[in-house]
Order: sequence, then structure tokens, then C-alpha cells
Amino acid sequence: MTRRHPLLLVLCFLGLPAIADEGMWTLDNPPLQRIQEAYGMAPSAAWIDKAMHASVRLAAGCSGSFVSRKGLVLTNHHCAARCIEQLSDAQHDLLVEGVLAASAEQERQCPAMELNRLEQITDVTRAVIDATAGLDGEAYKQARNAVQARLTSECAGADARRTRCDVVDLYHGGQYKLYRYRRFQDVRLVFAPERIAAFFGGDPDNFNFPRFDLDMALLRVYEDGRPAEVRDYFPVSAQGPAAGQLVFVTGHPGSTQRELTMARLSTMRTLTLPETLLRLAEYRGVLEQYSGGGAEPARYAAGELFGVENSYKALRGRLETLLDPQAFEAKRQEEAALRAYAAAHAGLKTDSAGAWDAIEQAEVAFREQYRPLAALEFGNPFLTEYFRIARVLVRGAAERPLPNAKRLPEYADAGLPEVEARLFSKAPIYPEFEKLRLAFALSKMRESLGADHPTVRQVLGKDSPGQLAARLVDGTHLGDVALRRRLWDGGQAAIDASDDPFIRFVVALDPQARALRKRYEAQIESVEQKSAERIARVRFARTGAEHYPDATFSLRLSYGKVAGWQEGETQVEPFTRFAGAFERATGSDPFRLPDSWLRARNSIDPAKPLNFVTTNDIIGGNSGSPVVDSQGALVGLIFDGNIRSLGGAFLYDGARNRAVAVDSAAILEAMEKIYHAGALAREMRAE
Amino acid sequence: MTRRHPLLLVLCFLGLPAIADEGMWTLDNPPLQRIQEAYGMAPSAAWIDKAMHASVRLAAGCSGSFVSRKGLVLTNHHCAARCIEQLSDAQHDLLVEGVLAASAEQERQCPAMELNRLEQITDVTRAVIDATAGLDGEAYKQARNAVQARLTSECAGADARRTRCDVVDLYHGGQYKLYRYRRFQDVRLVFAPERIAAFFGGDPDNFNFPRFDLDMALLRVYEDGRPAEVRDYFPVSAQGPAAGQLVFVTGHPGSTQRELTMARLSTMRTLTLPETLLRLAEYRGVLEQYSGGGAEPARYAAGELFGVENSYKALRGRLETLLDPQAFEAKRQEEAALRAYAAAHAGLKTDSAGAWDAIEQAEVAFREQYRPLAALEFGNPFLTEYFRIARVLVRGAAERPLPNAKRLPEYADAGLPEVEARLFSKAPIYPEFEKLRLAFALSKMRESLGADHPTVRQVLGKDSPGQLAARLVDGTHLGDVALRRRLWDGGQAAIDASDDPFIRFVVALDPQARALRKRYEAQIESVEQKSAERIARVRFARTGAEHYPDATFSLRLSYGKVAGWQEGETQVEPFTRFAGAFERATGSDPFRLPDSWLRARNSIDPAKPLNFVTTNDIIGGNSGSPVVDSQGALVGLIFDGNIRSLGGAFLYDGARNRAVAVDSAAILEAMEKIYHAGALAREMRAE
Repeated sequence: MTRRHPLLLVLCFLGLPAIADEGMWTLDNPPLQRIQEAYGMAPSAAWIDKAMHASVRLAAGCSGSFVSRKGLVLTNHHCAARCIEQLSDAQHDLLVEGVLAASAEQERQCPAMELNRLEQITDVTRAVIDATAGLDGEAYKQARNAVQARLTSECAGADARRTRCDVVDLYHGGQYKLYRYRRFQDVRLVFAPERIAAFFGGDPDNFNFPRFDLDMALLRVYEDGRPAEVRDYFPVSAQGPAAGQLVFVTGHPGSTQRELTMARLSTMRTLTLPETLLRLAEYRGVLEQYSGGGAEPARYAAGELFGVENSYKALRGRLETLLDPQAFEAKRQEEAALRAYAAAHAGLKTDSAGAWDAIEQAEVAFREQYRPLAALEFGNPFLTEYFRIARVLVRGAAERPLPNAKRLPEYADAGLPEVEARLFSKAPIYPEFEKLRLAFALSKMRESLGADHPTVRQVLGKDSPGQLAARLVDGTHLGDVALRRRLWDGGQAAIDASDDPFIRFVVALDPQARALRKRYEAQIESVEQKSAERIARVRFARTGAEHYPDATFSLRLSYGKVAGWQEGETQVEPFTRFAGAFERATGSDPFRLPDSWLRARNSIDPAKPLNFVTTNDIIGGNSGSPVVDSQGALVGLIFDGNIRSLGGAFLYDGARNRAVAVDSAAILEAMEKIYHAGALAREMRAE
Repeated sequence: MTRRHPLLLVLCFLGLPAIADEGMWTLDNPPLQRIQEAYGMAPSAAWIDKAMHASVRLAAGCSGSFVSRKGLVLTNHHCAARCIEQLSDAQHDLLVEGVLAASAEQERQCPAMELNRLEQITDVTRAVIDATAGLDGEAYKQARNAVQARLTSECAGADARRTRCDVVDLYHGGQYKLYRYRRFQDVRLVFAPERIAAFFGGDPDNFNFPRFDLDMALLRVYEDGRPAEVRDYFPVSAQGPAAGQLVFVTGHPGSTQRELTMARLSTMRTLTLPETLLRLAEYRGVLEQYSGGGAEPARYAAGELFGVENSYKALRGRLETLLDPQAFEAKRQEEAALRAYAAAHAGLKTDSAGAWDAIEQAEVAFREQYRPLAALEFGNPFLTEYFRIARVLVRGAAERPLPNAKRLPEYADAGLPEVEARLFSKAPIYPEFEKLRLAFALSKMRESLGADHPTVRQVLGKDSPGQLAARLVDGTHLGDVALRRRLWDGGQAAIDASDDPFIRFVVALDPQARALRKRYEAQIESVEQKSAERIARVRFARTGAEHYPDATFSLRLSYGKVAGWQEGETQVEPFTRFAGAFERATGSDPFRLPDSWLRARNSIDPAKPLNFVTTNDIIGGNSGSPVVDSQGALVGLIFDGNIRSLGGAFLYDGARNRAVAVDSAAILEAMEKIYHAGALAREMRAE
């Protein structure tokens, strides 16, 4: 919390949104001139077209890329970890053992994984703006949902199983674009090293550098039961990049908050980030202690614990940035400059009048409504698979009979294939672990709303959180995929007739949860979206298309170079090497190298680069992104950012913000020398 | 975090530190005129003298009072809980069962409890100021330690076992007072209800109201093996107080931060409170999950879990107040007004010039030094009894041979009787629980300082936190009180010769820990203490003695009345009654009433008051304080504050800040009807 951002003052003086290697640019607006000026070259249209088609999105929240013409996809181990866990059992924990499919027959399907490849971007700004013109509150929200449902449905046409379309809100209402994807739902696990090799250093080293991680996994996309043939892919370089080299990252940064108003940042600083972090910290303690109870609990909880620790550290970095007086002041000045610009230009003044104030008023309401929303509606509030499944069944039964345009957006036609794939996933559910999570969530709901809140009294009755959790989990049959399918197909009548305790639990709570959401959308979200559209017009008037939109988990291009940085007195070198991993290993978790590495030690080239850092502007969601050179070869695999990158949610600090990648040379070296995966390595390798 | 403080604006306008029923007043400066003006009466000198001698401090961090001439002491159950736990074993968990000594023989000694009764207050401001005049940094700190050691040693004289003297820093250097106490170290457990009766509603209801808690325990002070005869005590009223009645609280509020500069508040807001809370939240999760593992783990961890949850909620309330923009702005204006006053008065201007800025500079250094200090020096950084014991042995061996004035202050003669009582306590230590806590602390040290910090590398070497914790705990013999005594008596030679792993662990770390502390004292603490003295002079020049000092765990008087408050739309009534407890009970923890209550239900008067709230200004440390009427009868027992009182660390909000007490009528009713403790009740009862 004591760190300083030397670039901030520059930012304030310039008042410009993008400098240095900053920016997560859409592929239809690449910053060619900036790249040309900074590096003396810029990618061609063909390069960009290929990059778009060779990049993929893991719908659950990661990035990846094709690395062979036979549908082979390279991503991070931590992006494939859920699949690896789901394909494990008490005999074989593949997170511990690693996995290598020696033949196509051994490539097993991930229970619920969807990959998307972007095919086309179409501007639909006019259609969205026109559809909501003159509307407010609930009417605005409904019209917006309706036009999006129509656009995405028309775009996907009859083939929603293979085509997915999303309306992407860019620049907070400055542009609406229709992103059409090729959807892949048959994704199989090909290769993963042991988790301790992928995540060597564990949580202590997470978001740090130097690093020594082989955070990779290989998946393969199938069509009609055969490996998909793809035209565009990135061949993997056996050399990796050189220091100072220009590199590109194509990937799907999840979300940034660089364009949010001060009112919204204040809410994050004083309410949502502290609340979320404190909850995560406690949950982390519960999970740590639970995991220590044996190999099976450790296996059940591994994915959740990783996710919690990763989010905890990332959000903590964000809070530190917002609590930094200099950073907060820089954001304040940025907003003041934009407001002054709007006030000084007659047309803008009228259009944007009151937009910032409207958001501030909406935030006052949001702060009042936040706790019940977080307890009952946002995300997966009861932390359990059973609850998530039950809610999809209950809401699906109510929403699917409605016209597409009238549904809750997550049940619109465009989204249903993904919803169904997750709903019918054969992934195992661990009842004991479900109880733990549900009891924790119930007890935190009581803490957040108070023991005397009517909803808390209704939910708990005479039960303690542990008693209720045990009763629900012991009584449910939602672990049975066939039952889920019957309830889904049976619609409202099946839900009404079900006496499954989780279904009844959701049915009893849903009116309140929906009412909270509706009020939130009418009083807060719609006000903020409308106001943001106005502010976006000011920003465009001021800087044209010479800026990039906040991240929205849609494909972006970033550019930069391989480079270390200065950390206090220390110059951090841009590369680590295999030798360093062996030096750092203590033999104790999380600094333990797997036996496979120890056995192969003499055959590995110790000087070969293992990880490196670049100045590319990335954020969570970019995990698994390819690092590509100007020739279109894959030279690295993004898996992390350094600790200084966490403030990147709000601002980019070119002096110290670094993306962290696995070197492509290390990928091939490890596959060949450690994992005896020579055939796969040859499939990926650039000639 | 969205709450508003309607009083703040008034505060700003008046610029006065005390209004309404605000203030924790020293007993040599009682606000008689304010009380007279507000309530038409004021306590006499005799009343105050009696109140001083009838009040006691529990040296470990609570308050209490004598309630009979035979040395009977009334305090909270949660203040006696450590003793109750220490007198328990696997056969009899007295926290679960409750305890009632039917005769003097059954009154068992608490393993390490010290009570202090204030006898005399002497002004030593001149002596302290003169001793440090013209000195800076380390020299200032040493001179200050030396004069305090001399004053306390002279005050206690030859009889340090029975007399304890503390130099109390009031008004942050505005006054230094010598507090002379009668020290009692033979304290025995007389009565305690079941914990679920004392803490009905548990953590969910903690810091809330309405409440239904019998949070009481009775101890007895012994002298020479017999119950101590005391002259001054508060007889217990069978009626309790009436709504609106003027009541006083005498007790030992631990610490408030109302007079701190904005620089120090900023550090709390952005660094120390978030860090501490996140650590506590995670530790809480670990302890919850550990406690769920069975009756024995639950018994080991009960006290720690209560303490962690209590601190967590209290500190969270503080952070919410500091993150409240209006509250923070009010504090800013308060400081600005004081600085303006100083600048406008020539003499003050010279004296105080640079004081605020010096503190701000010191805080910059503090923020840099905070993490290592917290990891290695502050409090009990490794969370374990063994570490605490080992550090006392190692430092005691080094410090005790030095002249009294040259020692670390906690090893000065005045403090040694308490140090020894704790060191030689026969209280059980649970090795399994020690491992858990040490492993957690080690892992958080690594997280806070980073895996590559030299101290972390030195401490952990090739071990994981769990491996090191197991090795130290399995290898130590410090659970043996006789060994501790030999090491204490054997001094440096015994320490040098010891191969106990905890002793070696402390010996290896201590040079770094001491160096951190020394730098902190020289660069930060001494600068801030000196500067605070200057600011205190400004405050005295502005308001004379018409203000009260920040809390310092020394005896204070507060006044107020029994009164509910308005919470949003709800008018909260000031009293709860026995009937309410039975209505609220669900049968599930923590809303479960003990069998003793259920059995006695028909004989208890359901309309009898159980708990009540008052406007008295209190804070943590006041637990166990008597609520006394103007006749000197005890009408209540403070055990909590409401949620609005948590911001009281920084400001008092008379409209909503409430102290929460057990009604004296409920105390007698429960003892007679539920616990069959009629003889004890008669001993306490006012005629």
C-alpha cells in the first residue's frame, strides 16, 4: 500500500488515456500507428486476421490459442485444472500425477468446457441506442435486453450449437459490437504436467517474479468425434523471444475499471472490495484447514482454494491501489479533466449534463442494496454446485417459455447451449465439500444481513447453518444428471412437483432474489448504463478512437516488449532459466519439484529460459493467452502478471507493470526431455 | 459503511472535543459541571473516592468491581473465560458446564490472573518532560524509559508484589500521571454460568442489541490464603435502573484514537486496519474449521476464536468509520481547526511548528517498516504460547542484569511480578493447537515479507511452515513450568546452554526483531511522542482541562443515562427481558439456552429486565465495568457496546452510541432461580 506510481503525474498532465505500451485494443481498432512509432514496425491486416482466428476463449474465464492444424489448443494448467480435477478420482489424482494422452483414444472429454473462436465483429451501436432511446429504469433495461436477445439470436441463426453471438458493450456504452464466435463444446484433455510443476512456488510466488512455472496444458477441439481441422494457428517457436523484442498478446482480459467514475471507484474502495476481501480471507482459512484434513478433502477443495487465493491476491492489489492516495488523486484529476472538457463544449454539456451526478446518486442506492444483493443474487451466493444447478432449473423453467426478448439475459437463446452443457455436466460433486461451503455461505449471510433479517429467519428457521446445510445436501438428488435433465425438460410442472430440498430452497428464496435484482437493474444499473453512454460520448469527442475500451472478456490485442524492471534497488531480469527452478526447490510444498523433473535434471539444458516478463498490458482472463512475435510464431504463454500489474484494473504503470509468461522454448524442452511427449511437441513445433 | 454521523457537523462547527454524554474522564478531573448541567446533580468527592476503590482492573485487559466486603469481584464471563478454560479438562469443560463454588475450599485459583485496584494518582508531568528535554530519537526514548522506570520503582518501593505503579501518558504527552495500584495475584473462580447463557446469540449478536446475555462471572481476591477484606464495594441493586436514569460507569477503556493526527489515521485506514482485518478473517476461518473437528479441538480453540471474532468485528467497525467519507472529513476539519488555532497564537506557533508534519514524515517511515514489525515484533507475532514464553525467557535473561532504567520497559522492576506470574502459570498448553497457530503464523510471515526475504529464508530454510511448526512444538519442553523456572533463574548462561528448539528459534531471530524495534522507536515512536506533546499543549491552550484524554487502559469515569435509540425506522427500546431470551431461542447454537434455564423457566419472572443500554461513552477494556447509580449501588454490568459504538475509537455519536449491560436485577434473579447460588446472591445484594 505504500507503492508509488511515478507515471501518474505524467498521466495527469497529459490527460490522455493511453501511453507507453498501454492498452487492450479491440482487433478492429489496432493501434498500428502507436506500434509503428514505438517499434518501427506494425502488424499487417493478414497478421491480425490470423491472430484473431488462432486465438480462443475458454468460456469459463480464460484464453488460449490453436497451436496445430489438428485443433490442438495451448492454455494454462490453471485454466484446465477444473477439467483435470473432474477427470480424476480417488485412485488417480491427475492434478498430482499429470496426464499425457498417448493416442487420440486416450484424449478424454472435459465434462463441461466450452471454447469460442472469434469469427466476425459487427457494429450494432445504432441498433442498441435506438432501441433504448427515451427510456428509463426498468423500461430501459428491458428494451436493452430485448434488442440484445434479438441481435444475438439473429446472428446465431439456426445453429446455436456451433455459433455463439454476444453483444459486447465497449467504452461503457460508447460502442456496442456483435461478436460472432465459432462455439466448440467437445474439448478433450491431451497433456498436463503435475500441478506442482505448473504452479511451483504456489501462492507465495503467485503474482511475483522471478518465477519458474510450467503453467501449461494442452486440449484438443473435436468436431463430429474427430480432431477439428483449423486453418489458423500459431506454430510454437523452439527459440522463444529475445530481450527487448516486440511481442503481441491476443487474449480475453476479463474486466478493468479504468473508465469508471469516481463515485463507482469510491464504492469499490470503501465497500465492495473490503467486503469481498474479508469474506475471501475467511473462506480461504476455512479451505486451508479443510484441505489439511487428508488427500481426499485436499482433492475436493484444490480448485476452489486456488481460485480463492488467486482472487484474494488480485483484489488485494486492487484495493491497495485505490487506497493509495496518489493513485486515487490521479483518478480524480482524470475525471475532473473530462468533466471540464464536457462543460466547455456546448453540445456535450447538454448531452452529458448530470451524468456523473446521476451515477453518484445511483451509487448511494447501491451501497444500501449491496449486502442483500451479494447474499442472495450476485454470482453463486451459496457457493455450492447444488444451489447453482437448482437455480438454473428453477429459473430456466420460468424463463424459457417466455419470448426470447423478455427473458433474463442469461436464459436467452444465445446462451442456452452453454447453460445446458454446464447443467448436464457429468463432473463429480462432493457432498461433504458442498456441506462445508453451504454452511459457510449461510453463516456469512446471517452475519451480513443480521440474525433478525426476515430472509435470514425464513432461511434458517430453527436450524444452525450447519444443520440446514446437512439437511439440504443429504436430501438432494441433483447429483443425478438424468434427474436434472428430467427437471429441465419437464419445465414448470416438473419444478412444482419436485420435492428435492434444493429445488424447494431456491423456489422459496427466488421471489426475494428476483425482486432485489429487479430493483437494482431499474434504480442502479440502468441509470449507470445510460449515464455512461453520455460520458462515453464526451470521451470520444475528446480523443476520438485513439483510446481503448475497458476489458470485457472479449478478444483484445496488446503490444509490448520483453523487459525486466526496476524494483526499489533491484533490477529484475526479464528471464528465468531451468537452473533457477532447481536452485529454488526446497523439497517442501509449494517449493517441491516433481520426480519427473528430478529424474530428467541431467538431460535438461539448465540455461534454457523458463519464464519471462513483458510490458504487455494484460489482466485476469488473459491467462493462457499466446505471446506472438511479428512473424506469427508463438514465443510464450501468458500465465500471470507481476504484483505491480494488479493495479492495472485502474491504471497502467509502464515502468513496473509486467505480464509473466512461460517461454515457448521451455514448453518444448519440458515436453521432450521431461514428459516424453515428443510426438505432441513435433505437432506444435514451428519448422 | 454507508452510515452517517449526524453529530459530526455539530462537532465541526463547535470545534469542541466533548458534548452530550461524551467522555472517558480521569477520576482526578471528573466533569462535575457538565453532569450537573445535564442531569441536575453531580457525584460528591466521597462518591468518587469510593468508586475509585471499588473498581478493579483485570491486568489482562478487562474491568470489574468489588461487590462484597469479602473481596468478591463481579466481571464478565468473557473476561474470566481464560481462567475458566484453564481450570477445565477433558472430563469437565467448565465453559460448557458452568461452575459454582459451594464453599471457600471449592474456589480454585486462576492460573495467571492479576487484579489491580487504583489507590492514588500523582502528577509527574514535570519530571518526565524535564528528563527528556532537548533529546531526540533513541536518546529521547531511553531517557523516557529511564525516568518511567525510576518513578514506578520508587513508587512501588520494596513491596512490588503488592504494589504496582504505572506512568500513564494522558492527552498524548499532555500529562504524565503516576497511577499506584494495589496488586492482587491470588484470584479465585467463584461462579460462572454456562458460556451459552453468557454469550447467547454468539458472534451473530455480538455488538448488537437487543441482547439476552448473562455475561457475568464472580471471582474472589485472596490475601494470605484468606478472602481479602475490602472497605469499598458496590452493593448490587435488586431493582436495576429505570429508563432515563443517570448512571455512571467506572472502568478501564483500553484505547481510543480520538486525538490522533490525520497522518496516523490515514495509516490505520489504508494499511494497519486492512492488514490486520484480513489476517484476522483468515485466522478466523482456520479456527472455525479446526473447532469443528471435535469437542477437544473446540475446547482448545474456544478462547482464541472468541477473541479473534470479537476483535474482528470491533476493528471492522473502526475501519468502516475511517472509510466513511463524512467521518473522515470531520476528523480532517477538527485537525485543521486545531492547526489554525496554533498558527494564530504566537507562542503556540513556535512550540508546535512542524509537529504535525513531523508525525506525517514518521508515518511514511512507519508504513515502510510496518510489515516486518508486525511479522517479528509487535504483540505475539508467532501466535503461540511457547514462543511467548521463550521470548520472555530469552529477553529476560538479557534485560534483568541491566540497571532498571536501561531495560526494555516490559522488564523494568514494576512489571516483573506480572511477567513472572504469567511465565510460571500452570495453565495447560495444547501442543496440537500450538502447531496449528505457529504454522499459520509462519505461513503469513512468508506471505507478508515474501518468500525471498532473508528472514523468511533463515527461519524456514528447506521447511514448509507446517514442518517447522511440528519440529519446534514436538521438540520443546517449555510446557514444563519447572524448566521455565530454571531457565529464568539461570539467566544468560542457562539460555546459552539450552538446546530447546523454541529457545534457539527466539535466540536466532531476536537480533533482527530488536533491531526493527530499535529503529522504530528511534525514527518513529520518539518523533511522534515528542510531536504529540507539542500538539497537546495547543489543545490545552485552546480548551483548558475541559476535555478528556484518549483511553489508555487506566481508570475512567463516564456518565450517561439509560436510553434506547433510533435505528433507521426502528425505535430500539432500552431494556430486554427474560421472556425475550426464551422467545429468541431456537435450540441451535448459538441461539441455544442451557438446560438450567429451560428447567427454571417457570420460576423466573419473565418480565424482569435482562439487558439494557445506556449513553455512556465506553470502549473495549470496559468489559466488566460496573454501572453505578448516584447512591453508589451497582445497577448493571457492562459487557458490550452496540454496533454504532465501534466508531467510538474516533468519535462519539451521542444519538446512536450505546453501552450494553446486564441488569443487576437479572444477575440476582438468575443466581437465585437458575443457579441456586442464593448465599452468593445474598453476599452481593444491597440491603
